[in-house]
Amino acid sequence: MSNDTTPATGKQHLILTGDRPTGPLHLGHFVGSLRNRVKYQHQYEQYIMIADAQALTDNMDDPAKVHNNVLEVALDYLAVGIDPSKSTIFIQSQIPELTELTYYYMNLVTVARLERNPTIKQEIILRNFERDIPAGFFTYPVSQAADITAFKASLVPVGEDQIPMIEQTNEIVRRFNRLAKQDILVECEALVPEIGRLPGIDGKAKMSKSLGNCINLSASAAEIKAAVKNVYTDPLHLRVEDPGHIEGNIAFTYLDAFDIDKIALQEMKDHYTRGGLGDSKVKARLETILQDMLAPIRERRQEYEKDRAQVLQMLKQGTEKAREIAAKTTDEVKAAIGLKHF
Amino acid sequence: MSNDTTPATGKQHLILTGDRPTGPLHLGHFVGSLRNRVKYQHQYEQYIMIADAQALTDNMDDPAKVHNNVLEVALDYLAVGIDPSKSTIFIQSQIPELTELTYYYMNLVTVARLERNPTIKQEIILRNFERDIPAGFFTYPVSQAADITAFKASLVPVGEDQIPMIEQTNEIVRRFNRLAKQDILVECEALVPEIGRLPGIDGKAKMSKSLGNCINLSASAAEIKAAVKNVYTDPLHLRVEDPGHIEGNIAFTYLDAFDIDKIALQEMKDHYTRGGLGDSKVKARLETILQDMLAPIRERRQEYEKDRAQVLQMLKQGTEKAREIAAKTTDEVKAAIGLKHF
Repeated sequence: MSNDTTPATGKQHLILTGDRPTGPLHLGHFVGSLRNRVKYQHQYEQYIMIADAQALTDNMDDPAKVHNNVLEVALDYLAVGIDPSKSTIFIQSQIPELTELTYYYMNLVTVARLERNPTIKQEIILRNFERDIPAGFFTYPVSQAADITAFKASLVPVGEDQIPMIEQTNEIVRRFNRLAKQDILVECEALVPEIGRLPGIDGKAKMSKSLGNCINLSASAAEIKAAVKNVYTDPLHLRVEDPGHIEGNIAFTYLDAFDIDKIALQEMKDHYTRGGLGDSKVKARLETILQDMLAPIRERRQEYEKDRAQVLQMLKQGTEKAREIAAKTTDEVKAAIGLKHF
Repeated sequence: MSNDTTPATGKQHLILTGDRPTGPLHLGHFVGSLRNRVKYQHQYEQYIMIADAQALTDNMDDPAKVHNNVLEVALDYLAVGIDPSKSTIFIQSQIPELTELTYYYMNLVTVARLERNPTIKQEIILRNFERDIPAGFFTYPVSQAADITAFKASLVPVGEDQIPMIEQTNEIVRRFNRLAKQDILVECEALVPEIGRLPGIDGKAKMSKSLGNCINLSASAAEIKAAVKNVYTDPLHLRVEDPGHIEGNIAFTYLDAFDIDKIALQEMKDHYTRGGLGDSKVKARLETILQDMLAPIRERRQEYEKDRAQVLQMLKQGTEKAREIAAKTTDEVKAAIGLKHF
């Protein structure tokens, strides 16, 4: 597995990454992936997929939500500085070849193997699916393998918990290449970010729109202010003069993620631990940092929002470019398993 | 469920039928479906799918076999009198839209529901898959639903044992239409043939190439002769004068299926049951009938074999025509679940 410190090796690596369009992107996405993509686009050939087809595997009851969030996610991408002239942004459902690859890869994976997938196991619990798992959700590791291999991606940024997905993809790659007696598909490597998941403002779990503990990238100044006010700190730190705890204190977790002045931050932590530093001062610093960071993102988003047709045009061009590559791979795959006749 | 006696109702019904191209078609196919298709093509709008993609769900280890049998199956179709000017013959894998529909329908079916499918349960036993069921095989009822609904087929000829597949398709149709709040997909009806499965010449099970108990449609005169010689009769009927049994006697089962002179056949059965009629006489009649029936089929096949490029051209035209319909349905399906953006 690679991590953030992988040296820039020019453009020989192709990165595939993306998001399910089910709601606004938030600080958790920013820390875990978006700000890395802004960096990667200068180092690698980067493809960013708006995974609407995958989003339907657990949102089939609300397809309109998925549809509407495609453009919202694209706006978030542009707002954080992902540059469509450097990164190819595309819509998954508009590349039918990805479903063809999924279909044929399904023959290379057993049901028992899918049942053993730890990520799926965990997500089934998270979603309270129990026996009512949609078949599309159950088999989405195969769909992910199709996405990754269609682009012959060699690097895939994922959280630690998604590493089993990468292993599943590479198993399919090896099985397919063995069957084809040639190296048509390419194995990929997980690219795990240095800073993992960001907890929600309530400190209870990861930041997640379904838990309502997010700060969205498009949050207004007032929303940011309110959210910081509610950030979970140290419940035992009742009076300013009391010693406070850093661990599990979300204000400091966020400062760790966003404050670039690490020396000042360390001094603040020491002061807080000794006692004599109130939560309000810590939160004031956090708010300043978040307001400064999010203001230009929000403004850029507002600019792009004025011309949604142009954003859609950008997505169309990205999708066309991406489709060419996926179609070429699909053609190779189908030819290798006797599915070319004309 | 309909059966053979459904009155011809003009062309308002669309039939979808087909075969997995995994080997030569045989008398079992002829009785169970091919000869009906020759009739149906005058009554209905008939689409016949060479299901190479589905064949791979349990033949991924030998894709060349599937590839090579596509044209062989087409030759068998033409040989029995399926007329491409009346029936549209197409190759499943050349219509990517079918994999798109499969992908999205997977979200409408739970894993538990697939596990309960009796046809799948039985076929898993038949194939000794146990825990190593390929995911593609496990989910092929969803793929079948995609095939059927892509053409908005209202009639689907199937054996009794395949009726659960039709039920699964109609469940998907109802769930999808409810979700889309409009009747985009069409429910279908099983069309069960009067004469069901033909047993193999060994009398042990249905005729099946994997059991080596077939008479292929392309069998030579000598092969037919040899097969009839080996047809299982009544093991207790040792001497000509002994009374013989009709039940389980494959020679008579075949005569029931192919001898159009039902009066002469009944006389022969009575004589056999009384005693005094040797197996050799019964088999001689069976051989005459089979030779007479298969000779023109074999000869037509040999004619078509002379110009395989032309047969391929016929398949190309059929596939193009079929793809237009499937693409139209897929477009409607995707639009209804928010997957149209450009």
